[in-house]
Amino acid sequence: MSDFRLVVVGAGGRMGRMLVRTVSEAAGVTLAAAIERPGAAELGRDAGELAGVGPLGVPVTEDVAAAFASADGVLDFTRPEASVAFAREAARAGVVHVIGTTGFAEAELAEIDRSAQETVIVRSGNMSLGVNLLAALVRRAARTLDADFDIEILEMHHRHKVDAPSGTALLLGEAAAAGRGIALKDHAQRVRDGYTGPRTPGDIGFATLRGGSVVGEHNVIFAAAGERIELGHRAEDRGIFARGAVKAAVWGKGRAPGLYTMADVLGIADI
Amino acid sequence: MSDFRLVVVGAGGRMGRMLVRTVSEAAGVTLAAAIERPGAAELGRDAGELAGVGPLGVPVTEDVAAAFASADGVLDFTRPEASVAFAREAARAGVVHVIGTTGFAEAELAEIDRSAQETVIVRSGNMSLGVNLLAALVRRAARTLDADFDIEILEMHHRHKVDAPSGTALLLGEAAAAGRGIALKDHAQRVRDGYTGPRTPGDIGFATLRGGSVVGEHNVIFAAAGERIELGHRAEDRGIFARGAVKAAVWGKGRAPGLYTMADVLGIADI
Amino acid sequence: MSDFRLVVVGAGGRMGRMLVRTVSEAAGVTLAAAIERPGAAELGRDAGELAGVGPLGVPVTEDVAAAFASADGVLDFTRPEASVAFAREAARAGVVHVIGTTGFAEAELAEIDRSAQETVIVRSGNMSLGVNLLAALVRRAARTLDADFDIEILEMHHRHKVDAPSGTALLLGEAAAAGRGIALKDHAQRVRDGYTGPRTPGDIGFATLRGGSVVGEHNVIFAAAGERIELGHRAEDRGIFARGAVKAAVWGKGRAPGLYTMADVLGIADI
Amino acid sequence: MSDFRLVVVGAGGRMGRMLVRTVSEAAGVTLAAAIERPGAAELGRDAGELAGVGPLGVPVTEDVAAAFASADGVLDFTRPEASVAFAREAARAGVVHVIGTTGFAEAELAEIDRSAQETVIVRSGNMSLGVNLLAALVRRAARTLDADFDIEILEMHHRHKVDAPSGTALLLGEAAAAGRGIALKDHAQRVRDGYTGPRTPGDIGFATLRGGSVVGEHNVIFAAAGERIELGHRAEDRGIFARGAVKAAVWGKGRAPGLYTMADVLGIADI
Repeated sequence: MSDFRLVVVGAGGRMGRMLVRTVSEAAGVTLAAAIERPGAAELGRDAGELAGVGPLGVPVTEDVAAAFASADGVLDFTRPEASVAFAREAARAGVVHVIGTTGFAEAELAEIDRSAQETVIVRSGNMSLGVNLLAALVRRAARTLDADFDIEILEMHHRHKVDAPSGTALLLGEAAAAGRGIALKDHAQRVRDGYTGPRTPGDIGFATLRGGSVVGEHNVIFAAAGERIELGHRAEDRGIFARGAVKAAVWGKGRAPGLYTMADVLGIADI
Repeated sequence: MSDFRLVVVGAGGRMGRMLVRTVSEAAGVTLAAAIERPGAAELGRDAGELAGVGPLGVPVTEDVAAAFASADGVLDFTRPEASVAFAREAARAGVVHVIGTTGFAEAELAEIDRSAQETVIVRSGNMSLGVNLLAALVRRAARTLDADFDIEILEMHHRHKVDAPSGTALLLGEAAAAGRGIALKDHAQRVRDGYTGPRTPGDIGFATLRGGSVVGEHNVIFAAAGERIELGHRAEDRGIFARGAVKAAVWGKGRAPGLYTMADVLGIADI
Repeated sequence: MSDFRLVVVGAGGRMGRMLVRTVSEAAGVTLAAAIERPGAAELGRDAGELAGVGPLGVPVTEDVAAAFASADGVLDFTRPEASVAFAREAARAGVVHVIGTTGFAEAELAEIDRSAQETVIVRSGNMSLGVNLLAALVRRAARTLDADFDIEILEMHHRHKVDAPSGTALLLGEAAAAGRGIALKDHAQRVRDGYTGPRTPGDIGFATLRGGSVVGEHNVIFAAAGERIELGHRAEDRGIFARGAVKAAVWGKGRAPGLYTMADVLGIADI
Repeated sequence: MSDFRLVVVGAGGRMGRMLVRTVSEAAGVTLAAAIERPGAAELGRDAGELAGVGPLGVPVTEDVAAAFASADGVLDFTRPEASVAFAREAARAGVVHVIGTTGFAEAELAEIDRSAQETVIVRSGNMSLGVNLLAALVRRAARTLDADFDIEILEMHHRHKVDAPSGTALLLGEAAAAGRGIALKDHAQRVRDGYTGPRTPGDIGFATLRGGSVVGEHNVIFAAAGERIELGHRAEDRGIFARGAVKAAVWGKGRAPGLYTMADVLGIADI
């Protein structure tokens, strides 16, 4: 079987270079093209050299249509307006489009939905296999365990992170709330300080640690009288998002057009 | 709705007394009778006083038939041969029989199967809600994640425990192996010492800690390049087994006769 | 060597009964007397039966002077005003006084100081060996590591706890601040929610988890680029405070009069 | 104050390139020279480009004497016989020599001792600040806590590691044994499998996990009835060894000649 041919868009950026590196190291996939926007300094340079893996014979180009025409899939961690345009192009070319971009407006999501009627699009705010699996397990655990189990979510990130709780912590909180059939916004306990009184039954608590260079750790605790279940994830490097994206692209091969998530890729939408 | 009436067999033993205590504290259930074997020193004493919760007005008796006739369910953490006999009696009386006893021979299990044709029997080697849920989540995680994820199982117990790995660690190993579609016995790595060489792909590793008064902690780690998922359980006191048994008995009310497990009680047999 | 004879004051209360139980089970110590206040319902009852360890032949009495005269040491987890009076009585009788009581006013502490000129008094807000050792190790780690290491303190307690962070978490924060030569109140980061900006260098962060029946867990994290040190303590049952008190009393035997802490008992005041 | 000038030996190797990168990023230090052995392919290339940090204007050279003459300190993670020769050269030039090399024979260590009579040498098998501090804290904890506390050491490393327990786990075991005044070899419990019987009092237990890409995690547990102290270290990247080496070199400036360890650098030899 021939390799799955992938285009990396935004190939000169930090995440783009990691995607190039990941594609060059993964089995069964090949870098077909590397895209940057018109005028970018990286145009013409070898994508592999930019990514620190040595020359790959793939110069960075701005010709999206030609690149997509020669490929099976596209890896895209860029910006919302760019991703919307890439989705349209992917639909035209009939290639799998994997979108790790975040921050879309409603109207932009609707445009992506339209493109997904014509090709396979996999979109997720967190492409890590581990986090997506964790969210599914948390939802199921919350569905199974009754209100005797208090739910707490702990996260730790590096000292440079500027918001709390992390987006992934909130995603896990949503998964727990969905499992329990409640709305997170009505039950999130985000701050505890001073006299708090006893824990409110049914709350989902959050706690945040910041320090050092921690890439990202999340732990969901279900605590009852006499026992606790702890479901956690540790990210060691950001390459897990790139590897998840590659896996999603390969998974998309030959599927019916549609908008998919990493839960579909992992086969855990039903847990 | 009137309370669910429960019989505790082996009511003079350590686990029996904990069951009496748990029944006396749980909502929706009542202690209907407390059984000890003929000649036991506890016969005639108040089961509540034995259990340290004050008098309950239920003297310990040896009359099994009368006790079962007056009850809705039976909680049984005794010995295999006793549990086989209690199952027969439960079938005759048409009451739910919850069996936490371990160490059955094949022939004894077959006898329990026969009794389960006539009444509801819930049998499990570990009645904790948390451990049973954990095992189901581990099985599903192992099914979802491919061989890039190494599976390791860590457990810690008190200094008095005489075997390693714990039965629950092995149960979790079986769950992981089942999820992966392999046989644990062919892939268990139970000892690492000295020159081991690199980890064998596909192995399920075990590690054991012993010390202090730890009731029981288990952690299943799925470790890939760049990320880890950790699924764990901490038992703080042995009352969780008694509470699980009570929950199982109440769950069994009005079910069709049959042999059930805690996975059925929790509704997670399908994960 | 004959046993060290101990008096438990407040013997009818929850902590008093745990002290009686602990004394009855520890090697090298004997229960000399059990005290309750005049009019208490427990007067005249056997202290061992109250504590659930069977009769010890020691009826609860209100006669403090006689009790102290017959003893070597006193274990006291009562209330501030009672402890001040017991300290005076201990000074008169020349017995070791171990005070686990909390919530003293300044004037009460000064009175205890005066009594400590005549007898050995060991006073600590947390009598656990582990927590006191942990605080000393945290202070030393904070002294050794420079500001590249961010300090974070995480604690988890049961759902009934009404304040946050726990007193022990604050004690550990004080230890870290002392090691670093800063004032905790100027550097404590007790809340993170929403847009926080990057971590302020030099801060000591706190995070709080609440749930289930957790007796008390504390973890102090020193996080730098590329590495973390984690120093933690888990309490499994409240008996550790009683065992620490017994150890403190025996340690006090034959010492020069003075006010001591658990750090003295453990020999870690110099770390 | 002018920068501290450092030579990296073995600059073309994996650890050498990390040292070059670390020196180029650290404050207060400058790369004075980069050494490789005669005939090495990297001779003449820019050390910064080899290290992936862009040109530093320091070509790799084989001229050790000239390099040392122009420098204040030397960072050396090479091989035993090379390090012995570098120590001799460092003594001649009067520069600080930081040795992270491992695997020395007795006779080689004696030669290094001789060189240390003439210059400052800092040698350690693990240059991480965190691991060295942890070892000191473990020794002190083991000294403070009596035999009621069982000592267990857990480590996890990536799937490629070929020996167990890790050298650092054994180093921590030695620290615990030293604190307790016993010999590790008489009390190490390295394997538990099948029927083990109860834990032998006084043993120091080891447990090993292997998986994924874990750089190195160690946890030392002191477990008594009712409480546990856990002292742990997580390495996230191997740069911590390079940063520790740089810190050691700067610390050595102006010290009296002698053989030092990282415990001296950290000021924790007395804990």
